[in-house]
Amino acid sequence: MAGISGAEQGATARARELALRGPRGVNPQVGAVVLSPDGRVLAEGWHRGAGTPHAEVDALSRLTPAEARGATAVVTLEPCNHTGRTGPCAVALLDAGVARVVYAAADPGDASSGGAQRLAAAGVEVVRADEAEGAALIADWLFVQRTGRPRVTVKWAQSLDGRAAAADGSSRWITGPEARAHVHRERSAHDAIAVGTGTVLADDPQLTARIEGEPDAPQPIPVVFGERGVPGSAALHRHPRGFRTAGHELERELFALAAAGIQTLYVEGGPTLASAFIRAGLADRLTVYLAPTLLGGPRTALDDLGVGTIDEQRRLTVTRLEQLGRDLLVEATTESEQ
Amino acid sequence: MAGISGAEQGATARARELALRGPRGVNPQVGAVVLSPDGRVLAEGWHRGAGTPHAEVDALSRLTPAEARGATAVVTLEPCNHTGRTGPCAVALLDAGVARVVYAAADPGDASSGGAQRLAAAGVEVVRADEAEGAALIADWLFVQRTGRPRVTVKWAQSLDGRAAAADGSSRWITGPEARAHVHRERSAHDAIAVGTGTVLADDPQLTARIEGEPDAPQPIPVVFGERGVPGSAALHRHPRGFRTAGHELERELFALAAAGIQTLYVEGGPTLASAFIRAGLADRLTVYLAPTLLGGPRTALDDLGVGTIDEQRRLTVTRLEQLGRDLLVEATTESEQ
Ligand SMILES: NC(=O)c1ccc[n+]([C@@H]2O[C@H](COP(=O)([O-])OP(=O)(O)OC[C@H]3O[C@@H](n4cnc5c(N)ncnc54)[C@H](OP(=O)(O)O)[C@@H]3O)[C@@H](O)[C@H]2O)c1
Ligand SMILES: NC(=O)c1ccc[n+]([C@@H]2O[C@H](COP(=O)([O-])OP(=O)(O)OC[C@H]3O[C@@H](n4cnc5c(N)ncnc54)[C@H](OP(=O)(O)O)[C@@H]3O)[C@@H](O)[C@H]2O)c1
Repeated sequence: MAGISGAEQGATARARELALRGPRGVNPQVGAVVLSPDGRVLAEGWHRGAGTPHAEVDALSRLTPAEARGATAVVTLEPCNHTGRTGPCAVALLDAGVARVVYAAADPGDASSGGAQRLAAAGVEVVRADEAEGAALIADWLFVQRTGRPRVTVKWAQSLDGRAAAADGSSRWITGPEARAHVHRERSAHDAIAVGTGTVLADDPQLTARIEGEPDAPQPIPVVFGERGVPGSAALHRHPRGFRTAGHELERELFALAAAGIQTLYVEGGPTLASAFIRAGLADRLTVYLAPTLLGGPRTALDDLGVGTIDEQRRLTVTRLEQLGRDLLVEATTESEQ
Repeated sequence: MAGISGAEQGATARARELALRGPRGVNPQVGAVVLSPDGRVLAEGWHRGAGTPHAEVDALSRLTPAEARGATAVVTLEPCNHTGRTGPCAVALLDAGVARVVYAAADPGDASSGGAQRLAAAGVEVVRADEAEGAALIADWLFVQRTGRPRVTVKWAQSLDGRAAAADGSSRWITGPEARAHVHRERSAHDAIAVGTGTVLADDPQLTARIEGEPDAPQPIPVVFGERGVPGSAALHRHPRGFRTAGHELERELFALAAAGIQTLYVEGGPTLASAFIRAGLADRLTVYLAPTLLGGPRTALDDLGVGTIDEQRRLTVTRLEQLGRDLLVEATTESEQ
């Protein structure tokens, strides 16, 4: 990268690691490293969540005023320019007398952006580095900033002919162990997991991520959609993160989940809820586990999608095909997402 | 191969080519080459269909008695041992004074087999060669001998969620041009093509194999299943091979098709007929064209398969996965076929 020293490149990578120590939530994960003019690491910092110091301020707080003066701050996200629960980071860096700022992703916020410009106007050297990786680090947070809602994956398992169960509703082990293990990894990779009351009443699921050899895998927060509520005896009451409930207005519920710091939602069904998300145009990514079996009959994995005529079909872009044991995983984005 | 000369190996390959000049039908395709004791090709022959000479007799007919005496007959199928419309080939070879017979596939027929044994008993050197390729050449005919019916492929196109059409029945171009071209090749590779009256009445299909750059591609014989019959105005009346009609008793109809020389049947639907074949356990091979789109709604590509509970599911073995443009082709055999 033009204009970035080796020490600064190393510090950028380190800052990304530090960022991941912070929680996913309403605020982005951000990391910072302060370097001396000759490239030694003086301090590290990261953001610990809403209401706590931003990463660069956290790092500066570990330094004496003399150490900070003339130093270089390397940050994964452009220093903010607004007064929230903490003051603007751009001002904190100026006050500390930092001579140079290297940052990766630009701040997309209406109120918070402009920090780089403010620093440059005050005579600080400001350099942009590593944009793609900086943005990847906070891709989900950026998605929430852009749309106001979590990124939604809709998952279902079906027979090749699109059924979720046999005529009597029985469906145990349509897919094999590899596909089921994959689902648990996907659960763990999302902030929250959504099911309808139909699934809770029919299956009493635990909705935990159970990964072989990883007892501490991150657990998604369950969200149960529907008016019928969760029975007092449901296994969900023992979920390590509790659970949330939500109503039928999906978009409004998604805004509320984003406001609660949920950046990604894994919709596990059943057919009614999955179809409602797709029908509403709120399914960003689909993961369909296709089992090599035929069931026929009335229990389709999706129901009405509001496609009256062929011109209204919901075209997909397949982004990945993977064989999982005897099953096939089809990953796709909906056309609106391309 | 032990015991086979280079000239005989060459003649075996040539005999396979000759076999393919004959028609597919009630009888197998068979080719023969007669070699002099020093390995020169003396004559070639092939079987031109029921009621005409068998391949080895056809080849011998081109020779003087002196040329045939002491020669080697190379045949793709074991010389027959029964008197049908022609006499037993084993006897014809003995009468001609052939000294050696090399054959590939064994004759599975109850009445016709035993030719090799009869020749050997009479002092002719009999050698088995190239069993696998010999059997592959007449695999479909062997299937008919074993089961009494044609080998059945059931084909359908569907959205990822298992629909054949939108709610109003419209379905034009769910799959792309590559998948449609593939279907035409498949049609041409089968002896006959089956649809239900529902498809004829809804779509008025031509049921020809239309392959770019191959105006002379083999055409399958259309077979229309159902009591409603084919309207006088239907495009099928202009099919180059005419068409057959059939009733609801699928197994009985298949026996009749085999008796008419149809070794392979391509069932193109619609949903009712495809489901009936699968339900009856008469689908040997499935080819499912999956389009990257979602339709939802009532128009499933398959309907009732008689699967009441999950233990009755129709497990498949996927034998091939192929990307065709944006579509995916899943080829599978039903578990009974494995
Ligand atoms: N194949 C798979 O991958 C898979 C995955 C999960 C479940 N399943 C199976 O699916 C079956 C349950 O099916 P289901 O369709 O009844 O379950 P569901 O989709 O989990 O629940 C349906 C309920 O969701 C609520 N809901 C919330 N928002 C909605 C909206 N916007 N539109 C419509 N409904 C909304 C409604 O509850 P209220 O009536 O309470 O308001 C509705 O009755 C179970 O047998 C389960 O085993 C299969
Ligand atoms: N997605 C695809 O790949 C595909 C392929 C072909 C067609 N299609 C669509 O399918 C639609 C037609 O659907 P369909 O299901 O009505 O058509 P179909 O399966 O072609 O025809 C159904 C008819 O088949 C006859 N039949 C013969 N033997 C039967 C048996 N053993 N069991 C049941 N029926 C038997 C019955 O006719 P009788 O009542 O006359 O006795 C029955 O009504 C059309 O819209 C067409 O476009 C889709």
